Amino acid sequence: VIEALTLHCPKCGHRYESTPDRWQCSCGGALSAPLTAGLRRDTVDRSEPSLWRYAAGLPAIARPPAAYFGEGRTPLVDRPWAGRTIGFKLDFLMPTGSFKDRGAALVVNALAGAGVGAIAEDSSGNAAASYAAYGAAAGIRCRVFVPDSASPAKIAQARAYGADIVAVPGDRAATAAAAMADRHGLYAGHNWHPLFIEGVKTIAFELWEQHEWAVPDVVIAPIGAGSGILGLDRGFRQLALSGAVSRAPRLYAAETQCWATISRASASPDAAESWLNGERQPSVAEGLMIAEPPRLLQVIRALKRSGGRPVAVSEPAILHALHALAEQGLLVEPSSAVAAAAASALVDTGEIVSGDRVVVVLTGSGLKTSSAMHRPAHASLTP
Amino acid sequence: VIEALTLHCPKCGHRYESTPDRWQCSCGGALSAPLTAGLRRDTVDRSEPSLWRYAAGLPAIARPPAAYFGEGRTPLVDRPWAGRTIGFKLDFLMPTGSFKDRGAALVVNALAGAGVGAIAEDSSGNAAASYAAYGAAAGIRCRVFVPDSASPAKIAQARAYGADIVAVPGDRAATAAAAMADRHGLYAGHNWHPLFIEGVKTIAFELWEQHEWAVPDVVIAPIGAGSGILGLDRGFRQLALSGAVSRAPRLYAAETQCWATISRASASPDAAESWLNGERQPSVAEGLMIAEPPRLLQVIRALKRSGGRPVAVSEPAILHALHALAEQGLLVEPSSAVAAAAASALVDTGEIVSGDRVVVVLTGSGLKTSSAMHRPAHASLTP
Repeated sequence: VIEALTLHCPKCGHRYESTPDRWQCSCGGALSAPLTAGLRRDTVDRSEPSLWRYAAGLPAIARPPAAYFGEGRTPLVDRPWAGRTIGFKLDFLMPTGSFKDRGAALVVNALAGAGVGAIAEDSSGNAAASYAAYGAAAGIRCRVFVPDSASPAKIAQARAYGADIVAVPGDRAATAAAAMADRHGLYAGHNWHPLFIEGVKTIAFELWEQHEWAVPDVVIAPIGAGSGILGLDRGFRQLALSGAVSRAPRLYAAETQCWATISRASASPDAAESWLNGERQPSVAEGLMIAEPPRLLQVIRALKRSGGRPVAVSEPAILHALHALAEQGLLVEPSSAVAAAAASALVDTGEIVSGDRVVVVLTGSGLKTSSAMHRPAHASLTP
Repeated sequence: VIEALTLHCPKCGHRYESTPDRWQCSCGGALSAPLTAGLRRDTVDRSEPSLWRYAAGLPAIARPPAAYFGEGRTPLVDRPWAGRTIGFKLDFLMPTGSFKDRGAALVVNALAGAGVGAIAEDSSGNAAASYAAYGAAAGIRCRVFVPDSASPAKIAQARAYGADIVAVPGDRAATAAAAMADRHGLYAGHNWHPLFIEGVKTIAFELWEQHEWAVPDVVIAPIGAGSGILGLDRGFRQLALSGAVSRAPRLYAAETQCWATISRASASPDAAESWLNGERQPSVAEGLMIAEPPRLLQVIRALKRSGGRPVAVSEPAILHALHALAEQGLLVEPSSAVAAAAASALVDTGEIVSGDRVVVVLTGSGLKTSSAMHRPAHASLTP
């Protein structure tokens, strides 16, 4: 499926030749693809109007891809924000309405090229929809495992694409275990599969092209399990490795104070185990409430290396950002608003300084979560 | 606002210099902008990653536009359909989830450039969301007039962008009349404003570029009031006028048999008045249920001139197409599925022949209308 791709475990260093069923190290760690130096300005395929224009920087999979939506190249638009001008990357305009399509495009097309006929995924949100849509287009049967407490609205989109929805009693960990143990579909879970992040890194490549082959100073993205931040990290590092850029942006991971996994783990990584099982509160940014991010330490390292950090914002700040974005014509899900709220916080602390070019990644569509946008009904006016 | 733009009435021939408040002829007809010949392959601004790359073929408005979302350049993807390969234009990936953003981009930005501070629009669907988002981004107050029977779900998106929603008792005509008479906002109704179609015609320009500066043989779009078909017609004719292409595609307007306005009017245009008030049935394709399309005769002329026609499809065919599209990963609103169903019908009648390159325009996102996609819940499976 993937030519000459050697996966490695950042935790223990073990290496594996990539096979369709290899998604975890024997030590329990999450595997990563190698960092390659193939992408430069002159190897971008400018005739291809999708993220596949960056194929020189992606793991080789069969082309043309079995599932193709002309994905990627989402707009980057400037808006006034927190007294500055900030660039917003409109990844909520991806084919199914979230940035997770980038990861699904790589994973599902690689597995399709390897002849896999059925996959299993655990998610009750955006990734479920992405896998379901790409599976449908590739002719791969997609089984989505969800906690039986998941609301029908959250899985309606994946169901519409024809995915099989499998409700699992118990908590989120039980759901993941059931998906991993599925006998009908190969496990391709987005939080584990090493190619998922390979797809997400195309956000970095697009920002590079959209800044006329340079990079912004600061990029802020919401963080749940970490594929967004890790994709940005890998993408920018890859560009630096190839000499395409001379530096990488500072990366800030936006999370909610209710569920400040990365902030707490960064403060005391050795105690990670204890607080992972500690108290956390539900947030309006449901998509960010990940119990145990498999790549937690990778995320912490990536943020530190970039010169950025995790930023935890309050629920009122998230709701304020959600409405302020909508009133600029940007209707996003609460998880995306977390990143915009973090931008405001970083302006307040002085960590974003005058002259910094700042980009906020808006990761998911507000059309999926319109109930979060409900306002008190206006009185009926008759003119 | 619009330099040297002379509007004309296709009904009576009267001409007007364009002003922000001029949207109707004194005879009651809907006004049109002049057809210009400025767009050729060498006048496309390839450095601009949005529909504004075709500015040479658009009415001149202040640049950069006040409201900008990087709009346009939606993907064109091939899918198997009705035993053939058909191109689907994914206009549901426009910034607010529908092709109406193209029209709103022209109208709202032109009015912003003219210093207009508040606009009035009548719609309870996609156009309301488009005007609200562009108004929000341009800093123009947007008042959306809706029938008081409109469901809250249909106007939730416009409300989220901060539009004022004004509920009007009575039928759709009463709503339009109230918007036209509004004292707080300049009327900019999308079914009337001559610049709306000027924006929509960028679909034709994009299809031209996406076919490597040629045009497909057949383009099928859903029809409500007609801005989609009229935009395609004007765009392709403009390309022919400039010598950029040697012919225009056959245009087919897809409607539902429940509300077959164009089909009936084409059969006997003289009797239009009588059946406009005649019996029509509600359809799952709500967006196409327009009581009195202001540009009805223009639509009929455009279809005939192109060699195409209106195609009315059944409700079961629409629902079948809706699900078949979703199972290819394309989640659209029922109105869009009408066009895909029409493609099947035209293959069946032999009007689409082997060798024809066919494009179906998917105009609106299924994320707005997920209730139409509800399926019977699967049984809860425990693996």
